[in-house]
Amino acid sequence: MMMARYTMQRVAISWQNGLITSIASATRSLHTTKDRHSCKIIMSPPLVSLDLPDIWSSNSNQYHSIPPQKFSNEQIIIDGKSIAEDIRSSITSEVSRMKESIGKVPGLAVIVVGQRRDSLIYVRNKIKACEEAGIKSVMTELPDECAEDEVLSALANFNEDSSIHGILVQLPLPQHLDEGKILNALSLEKDVDGFHPLNMGNLAMRGREPLFIPCTPKGCIELLIRSGVEIIGKNAVVIGKSNIVGLPTSLLLQRHHATVSIVHALTKNPEQITREADIVITAAGVPNLVRGSWLKPGAVVLDVGTFPVDDPSSESGYCLMGDVYYEEAVELVSAITPVPGGVGPMTIAMLLSNTLDSAKRKFDFT
Amino acid sequence: MMMARYTMQRVAISWQNGLITSIASATRSLHTTKDRHSCKIIMSPPLVSLDLPDIWSSNSNQYHSIPPQKFSNEQIIIDGKSIAEDIRSSITSEVSRMKESIGKVPGLAVIVVGQRRDSLIYVRNKIKACEEAGIKSVMTELPDECAEDEVLSALANFNEDSSIHGILVQLPLPQHLDEGKILNALSLEKDVDGFHPLNMGNLAMRGREPLFIPCTPKGCIELLIRSGVEIIGKNAVVIGKSNIVGLPTSLLLQRHHATVSIVHALTKNPEQITREADIVITAAGVPNLVRGSWLKPGAVVLDVGTFPVDDPSSESGYCLMGDVYYEEAVELVSAITPVPGGVGPMTIAMLLSNTLDSAKRKFDFT
Repeated sequence: MMMARYTMQRVAISWQNGLITSIASATRSLHTTKDRHSCKIIMSPPLVSLDLPDIWSSNSNQYHSIPPQKFSNEQIIIDGKSIAEDIRSSITSEVSRMKESIGKVPGLAVIVVGQRRDSLIYVRNKIKACEEAGIKSVMTELPDECAEDEVLSALANFNEDSSIHGILVQLPLPQHLDEGKILNALSLEKDVDGFHPLNMGNLAMRGREPLFIPCTPKGCIELLIRSGVEIIGKNAVVIGKSNIVGLPTSLLLQRHHATVSIVHALTKNPEQITREADIVITAAGVPNLVRGSWLKPGAVVLDVGTFPVDDPSSESGYCLMGDVYYEEAVELVSAITPVPGGVGPMTIAMLLSNTLDSAKRKFDFT
Repeated sequence: MMMARYTMQRVAISWQNGLITSIASATRSLHTTKDRHSCKIIMSPPLVSLDLPDIWSSNSNQYHSIPPQKFSNEQIIIDGKSIAEDIRSSITSEVSRMKESIGKVPGLAVIVVGQRRDSLIYVRNKIKACEEAGIKSVMTELPDECAEDEVLSALANFNEDSSIHGILVQLPLPQHLDEGKILNALSLEKDVDGFHPLNMGNLAMRGREPLFIPCTPKGCIELLIRSGVEIIGKNAVVIGKSNIVGLPTSLLLQRHHATVSIVHALTKNPEQITREADIVITAAGVPNLVRGSWLKPGAVVLDVGTFPVDDPSSESGYCLMGDVYYEEAVELVSAITPVPGGVGPMTIAMLLSNTLDSAKRKFDFT
């Protein structure tokens, strides 16, 4: 039903050959059978089901100039807030079904160290979202100057707590804490952020399935799928290569068979490279970095950047700015996410989804 | 305050000058001190030492057309065979030093299933290389139709054998065997091929150091460094996204701060994308895929492809062909590896190097 609702927004792009069409239908059918329940919530299929053999076409040697993409002058503003609400509503139903069936609910634990304003806002939103979905949530707040052992000890408690199915250590941690060591101590089965290197390796490697896909990249793919954007064979540029967004997004797009280029702070010609992209996902954290001149007409742009900037006119005293110079971009693109209200809400929805999936796995609940 | 910080970020950077130079010298000095011994053999530095903060330049918003790269008309044919011999000679000295100091030598175990001609050749070459370097080697050959348990049992024996520091399962395995399951059973400390997903995750993630870097990608970076090719900030294209070459090569190039694009069988305009690259590393396994028209004048090209083609005129009855149409490419590039004699010998040298490193780690030998 949701599929119908979102794909109607754009005319489906016709594939250039039969292979892709058949893969697409295989994915869809897998979707509607094997993963019946999770499919209600998340439309992106299991990664292993996407794996394809490397068969190079015989015309790879010929250069085909790509005709400029036709697109109507209608831009889609991808309403991440509304899509995330739909997903959260489905999660709420699933949590309720779980509670009725087996008397259990998923549980999420959050560890936050220090008083970073942005971290506290994110954490508060996550806890609130859990409450709304019927997911149990617990938070441990530690002071800025706490010792590593205190964090590890809080983590160990949650690792052992059978009512907790997801643990989240809010990043960034204060400088004196060893982030790698702390994240390594997190039980793999509860790594709902998907930041453990084993999860990352399984995300990267064909034939493997990570236990959890990091929330923001997963939310981005979900937005693309629900907006009817084809990923396979498309040129995608990811701006930024952080462990938490840029890297896993580039890996996930590759698992979906996009041709991915990763642009970062040391890239000499980011504008030129980005302008070749059909899909741009930007997570640089630099307000207005991506100008109109960086974008190919008809591109699809997802803006992960959320940079708080002082704004006395706002009630909160600040506003959030994305990486994309929105006013210029919106004139060119075929679809774009706003900031706020684009990718942000999806990150939280995916966190709830990962926590639900984790509890389902634990209870063998389908 | 945040606004102020943001402005400072934008103003602070002219990375083309001081910053990069200082990082480069930091890396060099690290090289010559901390990693004195391994540096004798391998020139590529530890990955964590390469990690840089994401500081976007204030001129990212301006488009600079990149002037065509000047290069003299002299092409360097990168002599992988000779470079690999140098490295193997250093490894031999180190093995000998280890034997004299502590009476131990590194040990490599190879498991090969079935009778694939190419696999048997690779394995034979690896065993021979071990012997020449003074590294102990053991091989278990299993029949094509062997059960998964037999492979797992051979693996378990080697995992427990304290004289073995590296284990290699020759890929590809016959279809009926679960490659993922088998590779997962391999002791992480002995995963000298670096194919375990935890190693792959640690290769991908900034701030992490894998226990082992996969041999072929490591050999490629070593060839670039020894040929004086700068990687940082360069546009690199990796052709092919296999778990064993394409994927780890793209991750490793990213750790070295190249701007990486990954081209694969479903890429619609591989020629156009590849032609933008300063560095091309191709591992498609498709003879002559990369024509002259795919290459930017002055590019550096590493050809990982080794496709056996029947050749009655050769003593062995076959010859190896690379992905690159060599005769066309050599007229354009600034440096190129031949096939054979380019990347191939480096893969074996890196396997020996990984095995030596593993034994050093085990014996705490520096």
